[in-house]
Amino acid sequence: MKHILLIGAGRSTKSLVDYLTKHAEDSDWTMTVCDRDLSLAQKRASGSSRIEAINLDITNDDSRRGAIAKADIVISMLPAHMHVPVAKDCVEMKKHMVTASYVSKEMEALDEAAKEAGVVLMNEIGVDPGIDHLSAMKVLDEIRDKGGEMKIFESFTGGLVAPESDDNPWGYKFSWNPRNVVLAGAGGAVKFIQEGKYKYIPHHQLFRRTEFIEIPEYGRFEGYANRDSLKYRSVYGLENIPTIFRGTLRRPGFCRAWDVFVKLGMTDDSYQLEGVSEMTHRSFINTFLAYNENDSVELKLMHYLQIPQDSELMEKLEWLGIFDNTPVGLDEATPAQVLQKILEKKWAMKPEDKDMIVMWHKFGFSLNGEDKMIESHMVRKGKNAEDTAMAETVGLPVGIATRMILQEIITTPGVHIPITKEIYEPILAELAEEGITFTEREVPYKGY
Amino acid sequence: MKHILLIGAGRSTKSLVDYLTKHAEDSDWTMTVCDRDLSLAQKRASGSSRIEAINLDITNDDSRRGAIAKADIVISMLPAHMHVPVAKDCVEMKKHMVTASYVSKEMEALDEAAKEAGVVLMNEIGVDPGIDHLSAMKVLDEIRDKGGEMKIFESFTGGLVAPESDDNPWGYKFSWNPRNVVLAGAGGAVKFIQEGKYKYIPHHQLFRRTEFIEIPEYGRFEGYANRDSLKYRSVYGLENIPTIFRGTLRRPGFCRAWDVFVKLGMTDDSYQLEGVSEMTHRSFINTFLAYNENDSVELKLMHYLQIPQDSELMEKLEWLGIFDNTPVGLDEATPAQVLQKILEKKWAMKPEDKDMIVMWHKFGFSLNGEDKMIESHMVRKGKNAEDTAMAETVGLPVGIATRMILQEIITTPGVHIPITKEIYEPILAELAEEGITFTEREVPYKGY
Repeated sequence: MKHILLIGAGRSTKSLVDYLTKHAEDSDWTMTVCDRDLSLAQKRASGSSRIEAINLDITNDDSRRGAIAKADIVISMLPAHMHVPVAKDCVEMKKHMVTASYVSKEMEALDEAAKEAGVVLMNEIGVDPGIDHLSAMKVLDEIRDKGGEMKIFESFTGGLVAPESDDNPWGYKFSWNPRNVVLAGAGGAVKFIQEGKYKYIPHHQLFRRTEFIEIPEYGRFEGYANRDSLKYRSVYGLENIPTIFRGTLRRPGFCRAWDVFVKLGMTDDSYQLEGVSEMTHRSFINTFLAYNENDSVELKLMHYLQIPQDSELMEKLEWLGIFDNTPVGLDEATPAQVLQKILEKKWAMKPEDKDMIVMWHKFGFSLNGEDKMIESHMVRKGKNAEDTAMAETVGLPVGIATRMILQEIITTPGVHIPITKEIYEPILAELAEEGITFTEREVPYKGY
Repeated sequence: MKHILLIGAGRSTKSLVDYLTKHAEDSDWTMTVCDRDLSLAQKRASGSSRIEAINLDITNDDSRRGAIAKADIVISMLPAHMHVPVAKDCVEMKKHMVTASYVSKEMEALDEAAKEAGVVLMNEIGVDPGIDHLSAMKVLDEIRDKGGEMKIFESFTGGLVAPESDDNPWGYKFSWNPRNVVLAGAGGAVKFIQEGKYKYIPHHQLFRRTEFIEIPEYGRFEGYANRDSLKYRSVYGLENIPTIFRGTLRRPGFCRAWDVFVKLGMTDDSYQLEGVSEMTHRSFINTFLAYNENDSVELKLMHYLQIPQDSELMEKLEWLGIFDNTPVGLDEATPAQVLQKILEKKWAMKPEDKDMIVMWHKFGFSLNGEDKMIESHMVRKGKNAEDTAMAETVGLPVGIATRMILQEIITTPGVHIPITKEIYEPILAELAEEGITFTEREVPYKGY
């Protein structure tokens, strides 16, 4: 009998728990689901007698270590910065571990100790990062196996709203942590490489440097750059590739309107605003505009950022209610926290709304002296605001990886991300059984 | 006999040493000038037998403390972040200290210990901060003594080039630390208050939120906001003032052109660029623009930032040579360091060039039911690239304050800035003897 410890019972764990429950009887697994919020853990545990729910404060060393000691494998669905203490315990107590988060420097530093302890620390096995690695490495390996030489690699993912639930001018609703959406791109310049030239975009210009992407049946999207494109050159074995670009998808027009918030300074999370308890949506935006006794907030904004009065952008801003005299409803906050609060009022999913995960890769390469290009895409819709595609595409690959480690299919110890054929092939096959499939097609070659 | 220790013999210390030398014989003072660079210290010490020059590495605790032990007063002309270890030694060894820098939190924290030790730690007694405090507090006190109520206070200072030496389209040359100019405004949002409303400007918009200022005989200037306006409300006794704004002066058009560098990301000092040793001015600017096989750097820039092709802004950029294929001449650098290097090639003062310090205050107040406004300004030109107005206006008030402490005219112990009548009155009078005078005039009242 093997025992699984799942730490964190939030949004993305439903498909994960369902998947592990399905395999628990046959494989003789038991599972503990823990969370700070016991009722959340109990909700997840309710489907099976093999699962128990407990309350756990992971900052309490004794309780955390006590729970980990009983497990054979630990799944951490905590916020990214909270994985490391868990990972250290896992190495010490020789337990495997799975996360859906980017490998931090602190996590990377545990590689040697994990190898010595014979422990697998599998990371980046959600959707993005996760399914993007699996699906990109499959095509990259196929191209290289045939002797192709990679010239361009682009990869974009977006967590959006499905067309049938899209009833707002932004084409967007929150299907994930709103704070991450508000802070997207903050924290430093974006760095990537195009046709062998290094390129840098400061955060305040990020949303004006987008590119359009067409996806069959789903139409047009726009993508803005992620901060970390370059590190995937070595990870994907693309050290000498002249163009690599990873990014995030939105519906066209989103980024240009979002840029207004960035330009005004509304996404700044580094200082506390004065007088938040008295603040309305309208006075919030006005605090970033020059004082004038007579001019309207709307006119000052349009003039400041050179927005035509008949622009669709103004429709987006008006729809959000940012010009309304509605109280914000917070007592103390940074600009980013006020903006998030305003957005949550309008971008919340209705119970019946479906979200949509869109992933798209472009591979440009030369093969036998000929330039070729392959595009690969995956679109997955959720069922409703509870059963989201976001939660499914994060939870399922985590569940599959957990099963594969428990069944000793994945055994190489150390800090890993899912980029080898032994890992991506079976996981992609199992995702396909669940209907999460990629469409690959050859398209005419076009340089950057 | 009293002994003065001057730490740092850089640009701004010539007038300071001249002033102290002039009083040394009468007052029976001796002085030690020290610097990492002994020849620099020797140059400063050459005018008087009462001054000795020594080499000092202030990071060496023993040498630093040894030098301080022999002094009655220490003048630190080090970079701002290096004052604190000196200040701690001064408190411990009961020596007075003078600096021209902003009071840091660490300096502020020494207040109580300084009081206990009976030590005066006088700061912000250069030009800005320094002469601005003296000249503003004088007018503020006069207004309040008459029963006036302050409504608007604005204060701007600029270190510029004198009209007779102004031969470039920016109206600017470096008369001070170029690095500080390149990094101006970096590090967070600017915060101020206009007509009772808090206003915030993110760094990337700072140079688009300027105001014009007219100074009799010298024409038009533009000012951008400093980061720290609000903290002077309590310092100046203006807790309830509805409008307070401190800023930096440039010639009109400077800020709009400088904004191009900020928008592109060229003033970022937080990361190292790739391939700096191969970089030309032109490839530097191109690294912040999108890749295109055919379009010119100029066209991509004009299109990206919506700059008309016939704009004076393009003339400014071309004059700087940023589109030239000239090698940058650095091996490793942040964007800000590359930009500084390019600017230094063109904005260096010629030996005969005169710099110019411009300071301007505006005071709006109501007196006996009537709204009134006073403007006060000071313009001071240097003699040449060595004897600059910048060095004079920093060094002289430091020298005068040093004399006043040694002669026990300033005696109140603790961490101070020069805002009381006992301090500003004699220093302003002595500056006037040197020809550094303010012109105050009443102007028609105009709200913000």
